[in-house]
Amino acid sequence: MGKQTYIAVVGGGECSEEEGLLAAEVGRLVAARGAVLVCGGLGGVMEAAARGAKEAGGITIGILPGHERQVANPYIDYALTTGIGHARNLAVVSSGDAIIAIGGEYGTLSEIALGAKLGRPVVILQSWKLMRPGQDLESNGKRLQWASSAQEAVDLAFAALTATH
Amino acid sequence: MGKQTYIAVVGGGECSEEEGLLAAEVGRLVAARGAVLVCGGLGGVMEAAARGAKEAGGITIGILPGHERQVANPYIDYALTTGIGHARNLAVVSSGDAIIAIGGEYGTLSEIALGAKLGRPVVILQSWKLMRPGQDLESNGKRLQWASSAQEAVDLAFAALTATH
Amino acid sequence: MGKQTYIAVVGGGECSEEEGLLAAEVGRLVAARGAVLVCGGLGGVMEAAARGAKEAGGITIGILPGHERQVANPYIDYALTTGIGHARNLAVVSSGDAIIAIGGEYGTLSEIALGAKLGRPVVILQSWKLMRPGQDLESNGKRLQWASSAQEAVDLAFAALTATH
Amino acid sequence: MGKQTYIAVVGGGECSEEEGLLAAEVGRLVAARGAVLVCGGLGGVMEAAARGAKEAGGITIGILPGHERQVANPYIDYALTTGIGHARNLAVVSSGDAIIAIGGEYGTLSEIALGAKLGRPVVILQSWKLMRPGQDLESNGKRLQWASSAQEAVDLAFAALTATH
Repeated sequence: MGKQTYIAVVGGGECSEEEGLLAAEVGRLVAARGAVLVCGGLGGVMEAAARGAKEAGGITIGILPGHERQVANPYIDYALTTGIGHARNLAVVSSGDAIIAIGGEYGTLSEIALGAKLGRPVVILQSWKLMRPGQDLESNGKRLQWASSAQEAVDLAFAALTATH
Repeated sequence: MGKQTYIAVVGGGECSEEEGLLAAEVGRLVAARGAVLVCGGLGGVMEAAARGAKEAGGITIGILPGHERQVANPYIDYALTTGIGHARNLAVVSSGDAIIAIGGEYGTLSEIALGAKLGRPVVILQSWKLMRPGQDLESNGKRLQWASSAQEAVDLAFAALTATH
Repeated sequence: MGKQTYIAVVGGGECSEEEGLLAAEVGRLVAARGAVLVCGGLGGVMEAAARGAKEAGGITIGILPGHERQVANPYIDYALTTGIGHARNLAVVSSGDAIIAIGGEYGTLSEIALGAKLGRPVVILQSWKLMRPGQDLESNGKRLQWASSAQEAVDLAFAALTATH
Repeated sequence: MGKQTYIAVVGGGECSEEEGLLAAEVGRLVAARGAVLVCGGLGGVMEAAARGAKEAGGITIGILPGHERQVANPYIDYALTTGIGHARNLAVVSSGDAIIAIGGEYGTLSEIALGAKLGRPVVILQSWKLMRPGQDLESNGKRLQWASSAQEAVDLAFAALTATH
C-alpha cells in the first residue's frame, strides 16, 4: 500500500467539453502510470477524469461531500461519504501525493490553495492564474506549476513526486 | 460500484487480544460476503479487522484523521487522509452501509452514536451497552443491535441491509 | 479572554417539556456563575439552555451545522456557521471547558462520547446511561459524571474544572 | 441577533508590518460600523484585525483549528475550537456575511475561494490577483472585489451586503 502513488484530480462539477477531454486524458495517463486517481466523486471534471482512468485500467476513489454514496459518478470504484460538505475538498487534496487542477471554478481554486497549503505539488491545467500582491504572475515553482497539456500536467506531477520522495 | 456493500468496522486504536481476534473474524466474514471493509485505518481493532479482510481476499479502505498516509496499518488497500481529526469518525460511519463496533473506547462510542444518528444499522459486539433516560437497557432494535459473536454481528449487519434496501 | 469559562450544553433539537425545564435551569445557573454558554444553536435543549442563560444575563454562542445563520434560535448572541454538518458536534464539545448533556438522542450521545474522547469533563443529566463491555453501569468518575438535578450538574461541571485547572 | 452583521477578516498567521497596519485599520472600521469581526483567532493578520476591532470597541470571535483555546490571540473576545484543522477555514468564511482578505498566503487564497464558492461577497486587499483560464485579470465583480485601502475594503464589503439583503 505505502508504495502506491495517489493523484488527486480536482475540477468543477460541471465542465466544458474541452475541459472534459483534458480531464479524461489526465485520468488515462495517471492510470497508465499505475497511480490511484482520487477525486471528489461527482460530475464534470471529476467524472471525466475517473472515466479516463477506468479506460486505462486504473483504480478510482471518490470522496463525496454528503452522506449518499449513490450520487458518485459511474466511474468511481470506491466512493466514500464524509458528510462535511465543502470541507471534503481538504480530504480530496490531502489524499493526493500530488494534485492536478482543471478548470476555473471557485471550488477548484480552493483545492489548489489547500493543496499548496499542505505542501502538496499542485499542477494547474487550463485553470486559474495567480499573482501574489506586488509580484508578477506566479510561474512554475516548487508547489504550483502550470501545464499546457494533459501529458505535461501528468509529467510535472510525477516529476514533483520523484523530487520530493 | 453502486451495487457493492460497504461495512464500516469501528473500534479502538489499541485493543485487547480478545477484541483483536473478534475484529479479525469480523473482517474475514465481511470480506467473505464480498463487502468492502471501511475503517479508520489505524491500529488495534482497525488493523485486526483489515488483516482479517485481507486474509479472506477482501478490499480494505482506511479513512485517516491526519494528513500522513504512511500511518495507515499494513492491511489497508486504499488509505485516504482527511486532516479533520476526530471528525473523520463521521466519514467512517457515513461510508458504511452498516457499522460493526467492537470494544469499549469513547471514540467507538462516538461512532456508534453518529452511525445511529445517520440512520445506519449499527451492530455492537463486546462494546458499550446503553440505556436511554428512564428506560431499560437498549435491546436489539431497528438501528442498534447487540451481537455475541463475530458471526452473529456480520449476519445482523447484512440482514439489516437486506431489510432496508 | 483566557480566564473565562465556557460550558457546552448539548441535547436534542427537540425535547420534552421536562428536558426543556432542566436545560433552561442549567443555562441560568451556568450564566449566573459567569460562564459563556456554548451550544449547537438550534431548538430543543439548545434553545432552552440559551434562553435560561439570557434570562440570567449570560452570553450564548451557537455553532451551527449549515451555512445559514438565520436558523439559530433567538437566544443566541453569537452564531457561527460551519458547513460541516454533524461534524460540528466536535466543535461544540471542543469549545466547552466542560460539557453538560441533557436528554437521550443519538446526537447527544455522540457529543458525550466526543467530549470524553477529548478529555473534557462531561456531566450527564437525564440522559444516556452507559456500560462498557464486561463492566457495571458507569458511575461517576473522572470524565463522565451523572447528575440528578440542574444544580448538581452545574456544580459537578464547575468542580471538575477546578480540579483540572 | 439576526440583525447583526458579521465580517470575516482572513489572512496569514504571520504578516508584514504593512499588512498588520491594514488589518488593524480594517478591524477598527468594521467595529466602528457595529459589525462583529470573525477570524481564525491566531496571529498575524488575524491578531492585527482583532486588535483594531477591540480598539474601536467591537466584538471579536476566533474560530481555531485545534482543541486548545489558549492559543487564541489576546484580542479575541470569544474563541471557539473546532479540532478540524484547515477545514476550519470553511467555518470562518461561512460565518461572515462578507469576507475581507489581506495578504498573500495559500490559506488566505483558500478562504477567498471558499467564500466565493459559498456566494459570500469577498473583498481582497493587498492579496492575490486571479485570472480564470482564457480570461483577463478578474476585476471587481459580484463576488470578488479588489480594494486599494482599508477604508475602501470595508466600504465595498458593507455595500455588497446592502445590495444582497
